[in-house]
Amino acid sequence: MKKILIINGPNLNLLGQREPELYGRETLSDINESLSRLAQKLGLAVDFFQSNGEGELVGAIQRAGAEYDGAILNAAAYTHTSLAIRDAVLAIAKPVVEVHLTNPAGRDGFRAKSFLSGAAVGVVAGFGPRSYALALQWFAWTEPTAVA
Amino acid sequence: MKKILIINGPNLNLLGQREPELYGRETLSDINESLSRLAQKLGLAVDFFQSNGEGELVGAIQRAGAEYDGAILNAAAYTHTSLAIRDAVLAIAKPVVEVHLTNPAGRDGFRAKSFLSGAAVGVVAGFGPRSYALALQWFAWTEPTAVA
Amino acid sequence: MKKILIINGPNLNLLGQREPELYGRETLSDINESLSRLAQKLGLAVDFFQSNGEGELVGAIQRAGAEYDGAILNAAAYTHTSLAIRDAVLAIAKPVVEVHLTNPAGRDGFRAKSFLSGAAVGVVAGFGPRSYALALQWFAWTEPTAVA
Amino acid sequence: MKKILIINGPNLNLLGQREPELYGRETLSDINESLSRLAQKLGLAVDFFQSNGEGELVGAIQRAGAEYDGAILNAAAYTHTSLAIRDAVLAIAKPVVEVHLTNPAGRDGFRAKSFLSGAAVGVVAGFGPRSYALALQWFAWTEPTAVA
Amino acid sequence: MKKILIINGPNLNLLGQREPELYGRETLSDINESLSRLAQKLGLAVDFFQSNGEGELVGAIQRAGAEYDGAILNAAAYTHTSLAIRDAVLAIAKPVVEVHLTNPAGRDGFRAKSFLSGAAVGVVAGFGPRSYALALQWFAWTEPTAVA
Amino acid sequence: MKKILIINGPNLNLLGQREPELYGRETLSDINESLSRLAQKLGLAVDFFQSNGEGELVGAIQRAGAEYDGAILNAAAYTHTSLAIRDAVLAIAKPVVEVHLTNPAGRDGFRAKSFLSGAAVGVVAGFGPRSYALALQWFAWTEPTAVA
Amino acid sequence: MKKILIINGPNLNLLGQREPELYGRETLSDINESLSRLAQKLGLAVDFFQSNGEGELVGAIQRAGAEYDGAILNAAAYTHTSLAIRDAVLAIAKPVVEVHLTNPAGRDGFRAKSFLSGAAVGVVAGFGPRSYALALQWFAWTEPTAVA
Amino acid sequence: MKKILIINGPNLNLLGQREPELYGRETLSDINESLSRLAQKLGLAVDFFQSNGEGELVGAIQRAGAEYDGAILNAAAYTHTSLAIRDAVLAIAKPVVEVHLTNPAGRDGFRAKSFLSGAAVGVVAGFGPRSYALALQWFAWTEPTAVA
Amino acid sequence: MKKILIINGPNLNLLGQREPELYGRETLSDINESLSRLAQKLGLAVDFFQSNGEGELVGAIQRAGAEYDGAILNAAAYTHTSLAIRDAVLAIAKPVVEVHLTNPAGRDGFRAKSFLSGAAVGVVAGFGPRSYALALQWFAWTEPTAVA
Amino acid sequence: MKKILIINGPNLNLLGQREPELYGRETLSDINESLSRLAQKLGLAVDFFQSNGEGELVGAIQRAGAEYDGAILNAAAYTHTSLAIRDAVLAIAKPVVEVHLTNPAGRDGFRAKSFLSGAAVGVVAGFGPRSYALALQWFAWTEPTAVA
Amino acid sequence: MKKILIINGPNLNLLGQREPELYGRETLSDINESLSRLAQKLGLAVDFFQSNGEGELVGAIQRAGAEYDGAILNAAAYTHTSLAIRDAVLAIAKPVVEVHLTNPAGRDGFRAKSFLSGAAVGVVAGFGPRSYALALQWFAWTEPTAVA
Amino acid sequence: MKKILIINGPNLNLLGQREPELYGRETLSDINESLSRLAQKLGLAVDFFQSNGEGELVGAIQRAGAEYDGAILNAAAYTHTSLAIRDAVLAIAKPVVEVHLTNPAGRDGFRAKSFLSGAAVGVVAGFGPRSYALALQWFAWTEPTAVA
Repeated sequence: MKKILIINGPNLNLLGQREPELYGRETLSDINESLSRLAQKLGLAVDFFQSNGEGELVGAIQRAGAEYDGAILNAAAYTHTSLAIRDAVLAIAKPVVEVHLTNPAGRDGFRAKSFLSGAAVGVVAGFGPRSYALALQWFAWTEPTAVA
Repeated sequence: MKKILIINGPNLNLLGQREPELYGRETLSDINESLSRLAQKLGLAVDFFQSNGEGELVGAIQRAGAEYDGAILNAAAYTHTSLAIRDAVLAIAKPVVEVHLTNPAGRDGFRAKSFLSGAAVGVVAGFGPRSYALALQWFAWTEPTAVA
Repeated sequence: MKKILIINGPNLNLLGQREPELYGRETLSDINESLSRLAQKLGLAVDFFQSNGEGELVGAIQRAGAEYDGAILNAAAYTHTSLAIRDAVLAIAKPVVEVHLTNPAGRDGFRAKSFLSGAAVGVVAGFGPRSYALALQWFAWTEPTAVA
Repeated sequence: MKKILIINGPNLNLLGQREPELYGRETLSDINESLSRLAQKLGLAVDFFQSNGEGELVGAIQRAGAEYDGAILNAAAYTHTSLAIRDAVLAIAKPVVEVHLTNPAGRDGFRAKSFLSGAAVGVVAGFGPRSYALALQWFAWTEPTAVA
Repeated sequence: MKKILIINGPNLNLLGQREPELYGRETLSDINESLSRLAQKLGLAVDFFQSNGEGELVGAIQRAGAEYDGAILNAAAYTHTSLAIRDAVLAIAKPVVEVHLTNPAGRDGFRAKSFLSGAAVGVVAGFGPRSYALALQWFAWTEPTAVA
Repeated sequence: MKKILIINGPNLNLLGQREPELYGRETLSDINESLSRLAQKLGLAVDFFQSNGEGELVGAIQRAGAEYDGAILNAAAYTHTSLAIRDAVLAIAKPVVEVHLTNPAGRDGFRAKSFLSGAAVGVVAGFGPRSYALALQWFAWTEPTAVA
Repeated sequence: MKKILIINGPNLNLLGQREPELYGRETLSDINESLSRLAQKLGLAVDFFQSNGEGELVGAIQRAGAEYDGAILNAAAYTHTSLAIRDAVLAIAKPVVEVHLTNPAGRDGFRAKSFLSGAAVGVVAGFGPRSYALALQWFAWTEPTAVA
Repeated sequence: MKKILIINGPNLNLLGQREPELYGRETLSDINESLSRLAQKLGLAVDFFQSNGEGELVGAIQRAGAEYDGAILNAAAYTHTSLAIRDAVLAIAKPVVEVHLTNPAGRDGFRAKSFLSGAAVGVVAGFGPRSYALALQWFAWTEPTAVA
Repeated sequence: MKKILIINGPNLNLLGQREPELYGRETLSDINESLSRLAQKLGLAVDFFQSNGEGELVGAIQRAGAEYDGAILNAAAYTHTSLAIRDAVLAIAKPVVEVHLTNPAGRDGFRAKSFLSGAAVGVVAGFGPRSYALALQWFAWTEPTAVA
Repeated sequence: MKKILIINGPNLNLLGQREPELYGRETLSDINESLSRLAQKLGLAVDFFQSNGEGELVGAIQRAGAEYDGAILNAAAYTHTSLAIRDAVLAIAKPVVEVHLTNPAGRDGFRAKSFLSGAAVGVVAGFGPRSYALALQWFAWTEPTAVA
Repeated sequence: MKKILIINGPNLNLLGQREPELYGRETLSDINESLSRLAQKLGLAVDFFQSNGEGELVGAIQRAGAEYDGAILNAAAYTHTSLAIRDAVLAIAKPVVEVHLTNPAGRDGFRAKSFLSGAAVGVVAGFGPRSYALALQWFAWTEPTAVA
Repeated sequence: MKKILIINGPNLNLLGQREPELYGRETLSDINESLSRLAQKLGLAVDFFQSNGEGELVGAIQRAGAEYDGAILNAAAYTHTSLAIRDAVLAIAKPVVEVHLTNPAGRDGFRAKSFLSGAAVGVVAGFGPRSYALALQWFAWTEPTAVA
């Protein structure tokens, strides 16, 4: 049974309160519960981690490299500023999928550049909480190259 | 039953022959067959369209707006140069999901800019043929906001 | 009697449906009919051409150079990306007036640059369908330099 | 009867003397006389104002907002450098049409950027003195959306 | 008793009429009256000057250098385009405080750059008419370095 | 009685020792004492927080959103690099005033860009420790729109 | 006997009429005739293709990859805007030589960048119709590395 | 006897008071007196004009074109921001020499770009008040091409 | 006896495991042991500190300023993004030497810019673990200016 | 009999030793011998010059202008940095053909810009030593405009 | 008697032959003869030096620093590319005047930037050979600050 | 016994005279003498070469590749402008260490970019003459990977 760590970055602990017309009304624990149920259905084990600190997120990614089969990472604002997180993703030997609730390319200029994209295995963005769900679905498919 | 048009842009008719270490060994019709089977399993109807011409792709998107419930679009090289395709995506009232086989942000500089991203509902990139599969999965979920 | 070819580029066949708060509710054939009546009043003969394809528009401009006394060109999205259309305008010996329904300088950054402007005899932008009407009016005045 | 103020910016008082191969041989008062005759034919009342000073032009635009039904503005060099004139155009509730004798996009790099365009209702450029005439024609049409 | 000159630049004479949802409904003379009352309470003498002309504003700053103990300057659009005003601020030996009703960094790109900031003693922005009030408060404190 | 949290970012604990010709000779606790006295005079309650860590500052801003009526924030170097702090300021419903001891626009190029300015209610910069004092004064005024 | 396809892009069908002081007075069929004679002398078989459409040129390059021993390509304006043509050149396993009548580096800024150059085996530019002739000469030499 | 108008732009009326370690201790009238004496020795007639207003300087240059044999222009800060002054220099048929007290290329970045240089006959910069003297010397030499 | 603090930034705790073909096979504690032996030979006392957190590194540099004679700093990814670390280096009165295992200028573009270099006394880069050794050697030389 | 000078720039004397997988295994004298034989076959006289010095290359081009019928120039690294060589090519009245062994547009960013291209009669690049051979062929054709 | 070295850079030995409509018909020795006569009249001793090599020009400037009272330098193309020449000008303690025959700001973009201007005492440009004459005149005036 | 060539670029022959507050008071031969003594102590043989000419430095690097075990290179101003020197460093098979007396990143903008760094084995900068000494120390250590 594959084990996946779902990592959320700064301010995502405020989901549901913060600008709900942009990010929706579900809280992070609502989303995590739904993802737990989906993971079970797909035969995956998931754990969750959230932090506002760059160093802590680097630590979580290193932990995912040591104890998990992969990670789903929404680095939020650090997506656009943190080389340390990028280096952590490159440093571990497990696949990391980059996700975003909204489509960063449709927002402010300084959110268009992603330091992560060159390091992650792939990116899913713009589908709200379902961006995480699609990333889980990818981990659930077992043969590496055929479609579904 | 939802109807989805899967649209592929220039040079994708050469898939399987062209730089296979980068794009894989499956041909476009191999991929389309897998996607048909997956669509059936998910309860979706799919049609396929490929063209090397910018005008023909604009036409296909307009047709998707009139006769389908949505489109999955891999605009290939036109992703980075065509405002006409962007305008077509904005002009129709159906959701269009942008997909890429590889992660454009991990390649040449002039492929980092996407005119489509601001117009598409979301983007899935970097998972090979499974990028299309994840986009189909998204159309298959029926309630709009809950996860899976 | 002067003959003018009015050429419209990609997505303009959707006028009236597409973002009507931005482009108005008249369809392209509504506009063309009004322009035909105006042309008659001004003593001009007009023909119309619309295409979503860059190569077809290049062909139309070449035809205007061979068979007409001038052209009115709304190249839409190609205004900002097509050097081939610019070269066609430079290659023919007849005046081409560049028109736009809206004022491109008041929209997205990548619509501020026009490859056409250096090649066209003049530009009329921002007046909705009346941008075409003003261009027709210009062709109707006969002495080259005096005002009206 | 609509009242329009035609405003001309710096160095346009030298028209006819200055680089005639570029700007033509008519003086500003020749042009104004022709425009008066055309306005009469179109059923419009016109007044004229010219100044080399940025502040005086801001004042004229504010006056057009208070006492006229609209303005035709050739801001000449200030088109490319003055935010104060742009703010004045935005601050008044009457339509302002931006005109140019030549097509700025076909000249030096620093004349390609226009601060005015985002604020004016439309722009007419490249037709010599007839740029003003076409702007007058636009004010003369009475129903707001139909062509001519 | 310290004497302060409060200088307002182009289009601020339209305050209360122009885009009230952005700049508020108070007119410039409403604001000036409030500031007079506040100055009296703080033991300061204030005079007011407004002009749409760059040269007149340069003159006012030079006058503040000769006849006043300091100036409060809202240069409006000239903040972003005028080196002459910057030079005037640098040329006089009295402190000039830069103020703005709104926060320029939250608006159009070309308003983010301020030529004044490097020359002014400090900047207060974003508090509406109270930006002037805070600047007055600063002049009222008498010992130069201690807080309040 | 309004409660305000005054938050200081990295290296401000070294005030008084670090480059005193630039930042003055008062230590952070000297300044805080003066601000406490001023707050008392103005009828405000103030608390103080300083940290060198980005995550801790995000936490402090969130705490200000939950337990205070507003915050005064000198984010020091993080002003120019932290989107996480910007997002925290946007995420809470209380006003945050951005302050700086010196005027960042008058220093190195990479300190000219502020991620905070678009999120803060206003900015006060360049007045040394009195930048905090002016921000306190703003919180002390009670009616929202009239001057003082 | 080697077979070479000579491909010409948009507006080159107007050669001889269009700006003859820049492109010479020979028509495209004059040039093609000369090239046929030269090819015969060099022991090569040549075919010709011209189109104004981007998609058609992509098709022609793919055809050259399947049925010819190489291609000579003057992509005209598409040289500077088409990634689809670049991808087609990369996708086929036959050498493509990029040619230009004039030296693009000596013209307008937006013609200095060539998307093709990184993909073509080599480039010959600036020799008028003889640019094609030199490319043919290269195909006629048989041993791969020695000079002539 | 040649007549030359010496035109000085904004803030130069403060010479001698303003940053004397940069601009010297001579006032503008000290300099003008010295230049009058030098002109007499060289057989030239000189007049002087100074203004802080852009429009007034445009007017002075136009007057130099009508009533003088040439002008010496120190446009100060307008050198770097005014297209209107550039246009005035281009519009008149008399030679204008651009002068600066200091060498603009050795100062702030935004003073390195000169709109005037492309329009003036030549430039003399960095020699303090003697920059004007060298410009006068140039007007005094009579044969157009030989040295001295 | 001089005391030096050797400070290592994010992900350097993974040395020996992470991309060994780039960073070598020695772990951080292997390196530290070698450096301890070298320091002893050179008559220096050394301590070591490593953290993934930006705030903790700022703290360590401040501690080096208070309790050591200097520091050797490999800030890793923070070299290119952290102004807070730069400010800490500027704030203390002890020399800090910047070191890198590899030569940043020979890697990705965003690693070419170093915020530290302007603040550090010198930089040693590209010699693997011996970069630290050379920095220690510098601290061991006692007379400040003569070579060795 | 036409006389041509073949000029090679810095480091080309190392050909055959330096990065042979990029530049081939032939030494410069191998290539020169082959070119001598080809020249003889084509009825041309050739001389050779190589230098690592910018000034010496300027001298060689000037000598080609005085004593030869044209030159073939591989300026190597100076192609991208030397205006002096560009000026020398412009200063002489003989045709100079720019050649490169590899295609500079397919290499590092700073090699994409060529100062020479605007000055040379044409460019041949990417064909290895045969780039020189094609340039010789061009000099051998005698009528100036017809193909071959 | 002051001794001045007049230094000319690359390609200036071709003056009179090279693009005479741009640089005039006088050769360098014609100009030098005129300058010798003028120097004599002004009471100055002059020597001349010309080289195409950057290193030789660096040497000449160093020699001017050791054996002359100043230098007049026309660095031609090296003006825009040579930091070594700039450093030489900064390294010597004698005044160097930068001269140009034409006004570089009125020519190609890459000639607008001058590395010399920040290092030279002043610049004289655009007056043809008389640029040198004006520089000589400056050396002839003896009191340092008064005008003439 | 290893043989090292120490190569110095333009203007370094002026050391001790030129801006001593920046570069120190030791002359180049003082430094070379110290380095000779240090080399002897470390068991290395050293030779010295200095030139102001780019071509001569290219030659010296080629000679180091043929006759020495490595080189220490201070290319001075050419560091930032010379591709020819970079190519020479890449072309030889011996290690080259880049050194600088001062830290280029702490100086003018155009000194921040180094063409050499990507080609050299490592860089030592900012330690005055001791930068050379540290580079010598590196050559003296014999086992390639262990620290000291």
